Amino acid sequence: MLYSENMKKILIAYRLKPEGLKELEGKYDVTLPVDKSYFTKEEVMGLIPDYEVFVPNFGFYTDKEMMDRAVKLELISNYGVGFNNIDVDYATKKGIVVTNTPDSTREPTAEFTFALLMAAGRRIGYYDRKLRTPEGVSWGMYAESSLPVYGKILGIIGMGRIGQSLARRAEASGMEIIYHNRHRLDETIEQRYKARYMSQEALLTAADYISLNAPYTSQTHHMIGERQFNMMKPTAVFINTARGSMVDEKALAKALKENRIWAAGLDVFENEPHILPELLELDNVVLAPHAATKTIEDRIKMSVEMTRNIVGFYEGTCSVSRVN
Amino acid sequence: MLYSENMKKILIAYRLKPEGLKELEGKYDVTLPVDKSYFTKEEVMGLIPDYEVFVPNFGFYTDKEMMDRAVKLELISNYGVGFNNIDVDYATKKGIVVTNTPDSTREPTAEFTFALLMAAGRRIGYYDRKLRTPEGVSWGMYAESSLPVYGKILGIIGMGRIGQSLARRAEASGMEIIYHNRHRLDETIEQRYKARYMSQEALLTAADYISLNAPYTSQTHHMIGERQFNMMKPTAVFINTARGSMVDEKALAKALKENRIWAAGLDVFENEPHILPELLELDNVVLAPHAATKTIEDRIKMSVEMTRNIVGFYEGTCSVSRVN
Repeated sequence: MLYSENMKKILIAYRLKPEGLKELEGKYDVTLPVDKSYFTKEEVMGLIPDYEVFVPNFGFYTDKEMMDRAVKLELISNYGVGFNNIDVDYATKKGIVVTNTPDSTREPTAEFTFALLMAAGRRIGYYDRKLRTPEGVSWGMYAESSLPVYGKILGIIGMGRIGQSLARRAEASGMEIIYHNRHRLDETIEQRYKARYMSQEALLTAADYISLNAPYTSQTHHMIGERQFNMMKPTAVFINTARGSMVDEKALAKALKENRIWAAGLDVFENEPHILPELLELDNVVLAPHAATKTIEDRIKMSVEMTRNIVGFYEGTCSVSRVN
Repeated sequence: MLYSENMKKILIAYRLKPEGLKELEGKYDVTLPVDKSYFTKEEVMGLIPDYEVFVPNFGFYTDKEMMDRAVKLELISNYGVGFNNIDVDYATKKGIVVTNTPDSTREPTAEFTFALLMAAGRRIGYYDRKLRTPEGVSWGMYAESSLPVYGKILGIIGMGRIGQSLARRAEASGMEIIYHNRHRLDETIEQRYKARYMSQEALLTAADYISLNAPYTSQTHHMIGERQFNMMKPTAVFINTARGSMVDEKALAKALKENRIWAAGLDVFENEPHILPELLELDNVVLAPHAATKTIEDRIKMSVEMTRNIVGFYEGTCSVSRVN
């Protein structure tokens, strides 16, 4: 393949599969790690002055210092829907456009959220683990029983695309939907999911299942902590597939250990890939390794969406999901 | 409470919670185990000659010998939707009515089926187990990834009430529904779930996920075995919440071990509570202890439905779910 002098140079910090990058072929000069899974921050700092486009990873923060070194940078095309790995305010100041991938992440994340919700309520993880141990599990009438999902109230905090896709599944599964959001949704959307808007406090008190689907910002840091867990029902099931730092993880482990809430399903943690050791010991939590979008098909779809943000930005042939 | 001489006598082989038996109070003379979970077959054989109504358990077969001893028996009010624990043909010959509880079991069973399906596909059980071991799980981009549910084809074998409730959840979760059933369903029902009728062979070949939701009979014994697993896609996920004996469990363990299918989710087994040791060793199966209806609320609803079959049979005040 020939690279022309005036091709835009793209630095991708992940070793993404080529299937998702086809639209860049022959038109852009792409660098990505070949012999390892991702570039470190130090490696990126060394390379970035030459690049017009940067696809960051979640292992480090794309900060002021990095953007100041990136003298040619025009576009940060994020691989993922959350963009708390980027100092977007500073990018805006520098005139650097930031994009994300909300379409490809929407359904897999909502799906995984609902899978965790059902696994936590119906004790799928617990049964599967305990049946493989010498003590086993009761096969009797009532002992070690689970909680129903059908007929229960799901409180969704953050009723954006993922929250609404979760609501669609939950409504068809017999759940009643209540939600909290920065802005109340249009009545037509509320009616689609038979969803009722509530204050966060009212939601925490009323819900049987609570799912966090809001973005991580300085305002949502530790938005769920001891006070919030104390407002929940003792039979509440708490699900987090958004960002770990929105929850005070120590307070969550304590609430689970003391049975102040009934169970949790967690795909995200405060210090990934580290999980609080107390959580690993608890039977009433279902744990996953930030895997909500982790299917090969979905990861390739995310690459395609990320790629199309670049193509759209330079060629105007498709729409771009800008976050600034 | 006074028991009149001509009250009908009911023998319940399980220690069911009184909340579900309220409608019988003062009108029927009820015997159930007090100091243990269930009556054994021997105990039932001793007691049954005095009873007009029997509520059997699933620990033994309610057979010819038992019915011949049950000289006053008029009604077998089964606690559950499946009735393979009863010789219904012989009951019919003796003029004994048999009833079951399809309404109360419908939603919890469909719900648990879908929970197992999502857990098997999205690897919820696997992640939860492995994160608690010293080796852990990859947090990387593609390693130990799962399979999507959204956009995939669900093949439902047995499209009765439970199958249709499963289809409702699956359709809202982005699945395409194909089904096989003894009788093809009305077009209006097919359209409700956008479900396409297929032969069993065509379904086994086409489906990404396969769920068994048919009743157990002599015709469905081992209906899924080596030949059927060989017809499935190598990425197929197989779910059984119906009855263990419909599947050749050894052939299933072999297919999973050799990765001829991708995963399974199992709530039922050939020799419950025994699980084939090979299955306990496999990472690509999610196991549950016949717990699909095992929530306190649902178990009480089942008692209420069972009770109403008795009340309806004798008093005609509500409908009765007869199976013969």
